[in-house]
Amino acid sequence: MLQSQLFTKTKKEAPKDEVSKNAKLLIRGGFISKEMAGIYSYLPLGFKVINKVINIIREEINAIGGQEIFMGSLQDSSVWQLSGRWDDSVNDVWFKSKLNSGGEVGFANTHEEPITKMLKSHIQSYKDLPVFVYQFQNKFRNELRAKSGIIRTREFIMKDLYSFSATEKELDEYYELVKNAYIKIFQRLGMGDKTYFTFASGGMFSQFSHEFQTICDAGEDVIYISDKKNIAINKEVYNDETLKMLGLKKEELRQEKSVEVGNIFKLKNKYSNPLGLTYTDSEGGVNDVIMGSYGIGPGRSMGTIVELFGTDNKINWPANVAPFDVHLIGLNLDDSEVAQSAKNEYERLIAEGKDVLFDDRVDARVGQKFADADLIGCPIKLVVSKKTVQSGKVEILES
Amino acid sequence: MLQSQLFTKTKKEAPKDEVSKNAKLLIRGGFISKEMAGIYSYLPLGFKVINKVINIIREEINAIGGQEIFMGSLQDSSVWQLSGRWDDSVNDVWFKSKLNSGGEVGFANTHEEPITKMLKSHIQSYKDLPVFVYQFQNKFRNELRAKSGIIRTREFIMKDLYSFSATEKELDEYYELVKNAYIKIFQRLGMGDKTYFTFASGGMFSQFSHEFQTICDAGEDVIYISDKKNIAINKEVYNDETLKMLGLKKEELRQEKSVEVGNIFKLKNKYSNPLGLTYTDSEGGVNDVIMGSYGIGPGRSMGTIVELFGTDNKINWPANVAPFDVHLIGLNLDDSEVAQSAKNEYERLIAEGKDVLFDDRVDARVGQKFADADLIGCPIKLVVSKKTVQSGKVEILES
Repeated sequence: MLQSQLFTKTKKEAPKDEVSKNAKLLIRGGFISKEMAGIYSYLPLGFKVINKVINIIREEINAIGGQEIFMGSLQDSSVWQLSGRWDDSVNDVWFKSKLNSGGEVGFANTHEEPITKMLKSHIQSYKDLPVFVYQFQNKFRNELRAKSGIIRTREFIMKDLYSFSATEKELDEYYELVKNAYIKIFQRLGMGDKTYFTFASGGMFSQFSHEFQTICDAGEDVIYISDKKNIAINKEVYNDETLKMLGLKKEELRQEKSVEVGNIFKLKNKYSNPLGLTYTDSEGGVNDVIMGSYGIGPGRSMGTIVELFGTDNKINWPANVAPFDVHLIGLNLDDSEVAQSAKNEYERLIAEGKDVLFDDRVDARVGQKFADADLIGCPIKLVVSKKTVQSGKVEILES
Repeated sequence: MLQSQLFTKTKKEAPKDEVSKNAKLLIRGGFISKEMAGIYSYLPLGFKVINKVINIIREEINAIGGQEIFMGSLQDSSVWQLSGRWDDSVNDVWFKSKLNSGGEVGFANTHEEPITKMLKSHIQSYKDLPVFVYQFQNKFRNELRAKSGIIRTREFIMKDLYSFSATEKELDEYYELVKNAYIKIFQRLGMGDKTYFTFASGGMFSQFSHEFQTICDAGEDVIYISDKKNIAINKEVYNDETLKMLGLKKEELRQEKSVEVGNIFKLKNKYSNPLGLTYTDSEGGVNDVIMGSYGIGPGRSMGTIVELFGTDNKINWPANVAPFDVHLIGLNLDDSEVAQSAKNEYERLIAEGKDVLFDDRVDARVGQKFADADLIGCPIKLVVSKKTVQSGKVEILES
């Protein structure tokens, strides 16, 4: 892409009301735009990055049998009343609104209830199980505070995967597959080394749920890491019982701040029972379907990546999620020989199959071009200039 | 894909409360699921179709310079108060909700206001123009009635494109490009022959806006078509003045019911002026940016396609938007020779680059398999059976 065509402009300063590093850098780089507190739009560069994140997740979830769907945001209260989660005193992040035709609707903050209801039309027999369904879909959460940039927002795309199995054993097997898929996903996103499989509070139906927590100063969570076992414990279940169960001692753990980038839950029959999602087994018995749910926020992952690798005036994207493979920076483009050389290099890289951002701007100053390249953060930055034309070698810019 | 793996089931009957042909067929085929009146989820087959529709639109909008973004749904009232469209008496399709942190938010029913505000950060000079920006993003509309299946819903993905130009002449030029892109899009979607460029009410800022109207009994609009000129007039502006202006006579026009599948508006400075989106021209003068907006609903297009080509128990997808290129139907699969032959054919088709749905179900009856294939509606249906193994020729099923 020609940078002269990109409609976004980088900024020297972030908005004054923005406190988080990820939002400051992403706004300055022209990746996102702040609509209001906790609401951001993805501009062309940010849209490219988040789609790379999404596609990595999609590939790994497809690889474990996930079937992709896209559900509605507007929610029928009756479905949520069955599980007891319609009431604001139980679920305090609802956005609700009046229907002009009468009644009230909610905006989905998660989708356990509607997907459980939907699958009643498609699951009857043990022969119909297991089923693994997921989506990338906007969630709305009426958060009291939203100060962490795109890490905690009032509206965000979520990958939510749901599993439907006949038995707890089958749930356990799929849970393990998802765990391994998540490990691969965070590795591919470039944040695997800082991300820990973490024991967290399980609620009523399991002793633990599990989170994927990434060590990060911007995080709102606290975890205790065992480097030896490569696992962590969320502060909320950090107690003698948990330690004993995991065979860990306090002395071998280190405390870190972290961001929850993924979570996996064994729901068992928590929703299938009240909503009546059952199946008939081979002997004619009727049983509750056994469920699991598995989330990753692509925007939160993207924000965490910026927190991890960004510095004051630089974003550093891991290659797999960078907006472009190569940022080709043309200097001295008013010289027709240099301009031709830069154009040739651009075409050569494209012919190689590279996705290239070519800074073809004739009137931007050198300092501006380098500052922009820092903010845009592509992993490979090449320079074509009068100097490189003379030397016959394109210059590689060190990050 | 193996049909035995597809979690959705076809249905013999549509839900009793469903009146529209598109929703009945799409629900029966397992393409969509009804969440509540006017809200549908896209299941794997429907998700594939709507993404094919989206990708055709995306390709054509990219080809005319559109840059893709993704904006927030939650809307800050202050932005809409500037244009006067926050008030429910002016804009009666708002969903609004209270913020837990105080104040009220709206859910976007369109995005003119926030995108105009956003571009104030990126457009300052005539050198920054023109800009063409678009997205595929959920819109929420608090419709009083929603009876047309996925043609009119309370929540839907919309392709909304906005153009920002320095002059009305530049707006006119881009408007013409979009018009031609839309003609290509509807041709590629298979509905071009029934779709007319239609003169419609322009509002305060232009004499006409233009719609793309597809002849369809399920439509809520009425248009008057000139076959000679290949244009139509919406009933709302069907009067002597319009006829005279277009050089048309009543006698040469035929009246039809139709669905509005796309629309294009010259907004001029309707939003840029109240929101203060200006640019400095080459002589230092400050001018309002001149805008256009251009919409297509992929779901509405998909629903219209079903209305056009579907019959009582059959969907007939045009090849470009079919969920699969080929539906390969295996019969007598309990015979190992037939099963092997079907598997070979499946692999041969995949090797040819075809996207294939293989009905590999051993226990489904022949009648069920054909009924399912009718509802799923792939353009090419092939049968492998005992008979075809004997004859050595795969059978092509006539639609």
